[in-house]
Amino acid sequence: MVQTWLWIGVFSMMIGSLIFGFGAANARNERWKILYILNFFICLIACGLYLAMAMGQGKNIIYGRPTFWIRYVTWFMSTPLLLLDLAFLGRSSVAVTGSLLGANAYMILSGFAATISPKPINHVWYCVSCGAFLAAIYLLIRPYRIEAEQKHPRSKKVFRKLLTFHVVIWTLYPIVWILASTGFNILSQSQETAGYTILDIVSKVGFGFLSLNSLYQLEQIAETQSTKDFEPSAI
Amino acid sequence: MVQTWLWIGVFSMMIGSLIFGFGAANARNERWKILYILNFFICLIACGLYLAMAMGQGKNIIYGRPTFWIRYVTWFMSTPLLLLDLAFLGRSSVAVTGSLLGANAYMILSGFAATISPKPINHVWYCVSCGAFLAAIYLLIRPYRIEAEQKHPRSKKVFRKLLTFHVVIWTLYPIVWILASTGFNILSQSQETAGYTILDIVSKVGFGFLSLNSLYQLEQIAETQSTKDFEPSAI
Amino acid sequence: MVQTWLWIGVFSMMIGSLIFGFGAANARNERWKILYILNFFICLIACGLYLAMAMGQGKNIIYGRPTFWIRYVTWFMSTPLLLLDLAFLGRSSVAVTGSLLGANAYMILSGFAATISPKPINHVWYCVSCGAFLAAIYLLIRPYRIEAEQKHPRSKKVFRKLLTFHVVIWTLYPIVWILASTGFNILSQSQETAGYTILDIVSKVGFGFLSLNSLYQLEQIAETQSTKDFEPSAI
Repeated sequence: MVQTWLWIGVFSMMIGSLIFGFGAANARNERWKILYILNFFICLIACGLYLAMAMGQGKNIIYGRPTFWIRYVTWFMSTPLLLLDLAFLGRSSVAVTGSLLGANAYMILSGFAATISPKPINHVWYCVSCGAFLAAIYLLIRPYRIEAEQKHPRSKKVFRKLLTFHVVIWTLYPIVWILASTGFNILSQSQETAGYTILDIVSKVGFGFLSLNSLYQLEQIAETQSTKDFEPSAI
Repeated sequence: MVQTWLWIGVFSMMIGSLIFGFGAANARNERWKILYILNFFICLIACGLYLAMAMGQGKNIIYGRPTFWIRYVTWFMSTPLLLLDLAFLGRSSVAVTGSLLGANAYMILSGFAATISPKPINHVWYCVSCGAFLAAIYLLIRPYRIEAEQKHPRSKKVFRKLLTFHVVIWTLYPIVWILASTGFNILSQSQETAGYTILDIVSKVGFGFLSLNSLYQLEQIAETQSTKDFEPSAI
Repeated sequence: MVQTWLWIGVFSMMIGSLIFGFGAANARNERWKILYILNFFICLIACGLYLAMAMGQGKNIIYGRPTFWIRYVTWFMSTPLLLLDLAFLGRSSVAVTGSLLGANAYMILSGFAATISPKPINHVWYCVSCGAFLAAIYLLIRPYRIEAEQKHPRSKKVFRKLLTFHVVIWTLYPIVWILASTGFNILSQSQETAGYTILDIVSKVGFGFLSLNSLYQLEQIAETQSTKDFEPSAI
């Protein structure tokens, strides 16, 4: 079953890459192109990850736990692009974008340390990683959201939906981690793999579509707004 | 002979670094300075690579093949700078530059995976890497070239020359790879080393000079153009 | 004693992170926020490093020398942020900032090579790393300083103080290296650890405060300057 889930990962990410890649090639303007390109590379990196895992690579028995440490290598490259999606849509400042990328890198690196460390040191790193995760969530729902709403006052709903989706999905990752062999060992190997695969598909392909939908809505609202400026009621 | 070629690499790259470094220190303006600095670091990184290899480092027997895996570590750092040379000369957009850097990183990382994987998995990664390479070539000869020509309509020849040189040289790398011990094992160790060394010198020192020449020509053409605006024939 | 010094490192960097983190949350404007965020991440990365070392991680016996190779991994991430502090305060150009970051990365990577190489190869890398260090120092006291002084003609003292502090502290690192087990083996393990810990605290927490003080002085001088424009003596 582990193997099946990994190949499901390969093909889902390949389909995601193809869709976003064609989108990028045919994007109507630079803004759409950049968003498509970000989503394309997010899926392409994940596709490479699943291909490696499906061929039995990037995996070692670490302190008695069979561990796909390669996940962390690719997450280190794909998660910043996911956050750039958000920063790009919200037209975030350098301070907000930089803090988000920093907190995220800290979260992935300490999560990696947790995964390759023996007990009980791995629990220390797990707590550090969760701390960085909470910091990233705080940054998203406070400074990021406030800034995005200030710059798009009519599109508050768009950002609330986007953030809710993002925060819910990302929160499930540390839960899988602590339930799997890395933590309390409640999930079997194939359940762990299924969990991560489903989360990856939703958080990468699914989030990609949501980000495109968000840009569409932001443009619609901006258009309505600028049209209204010429309406009698606005004068 | 392997050793000789490696020391040839060290000294060629050292000479390249010195020339471009002095060029950077004495550059007439910021534009020239940036181009010189890029070429300086490209050669300096390669110089460090050849020094490591000449001292017998960065090499392991991987699945029976003596492999300089360190090449990929340094290529991962020097190839983005080479593409920044091109993006800088062509005044490329964020979308084009980002896509190029992404495709290049994917090519190097999957090439590295090919090099450290057992047969037949290494051939899967070789194909993935060639796919990323073809994507990079497509990006260069279509969106990159179109954009560069739009921004420099009188300098089409400059970019054609630059791209032809770049594409031809880069195409020879995967050919050496597949003929060497990593692939069909036709080339001897010293032939493989000679091949990579010559390619590295041409694609780094040689390409550096070509990029400087291109900037010179772009400035000449721009000057002629702006001079012509004041000529009677232009009125 | 090694252990005590490592925990001193953990707590000093934690206090530094807290102070700069709260500063970032309450910064009066974007400029202060960015500077606080840079210093926050510099201390946070160092805090993670000392935590790992205090728990006995990131250390191996390399060619008979017990070596905390993990220092180089974290220095590779924190030193660019320190240089960005300087580049941010001095409003440095792309050419100067890029050269500084490049020379610094070369210094850290070749220092890492020195640390994990057998004698006498490690001395070759040590010299390469010192060469990159001297290049970075040259870049700071010449092009960086000249540019910063041109853009802040009334604040020469601020930059001289900042640079003197930075250069003196950074010069002590290679001296500890060559006196420790990595070089002439004059320092004991606990003296080496004490040396690096004190240097890290001064160069990260101490330098952070100095950078904030510098920004304060730059703003004061700019204010005085703009106030003077309205004074009778200026008319």
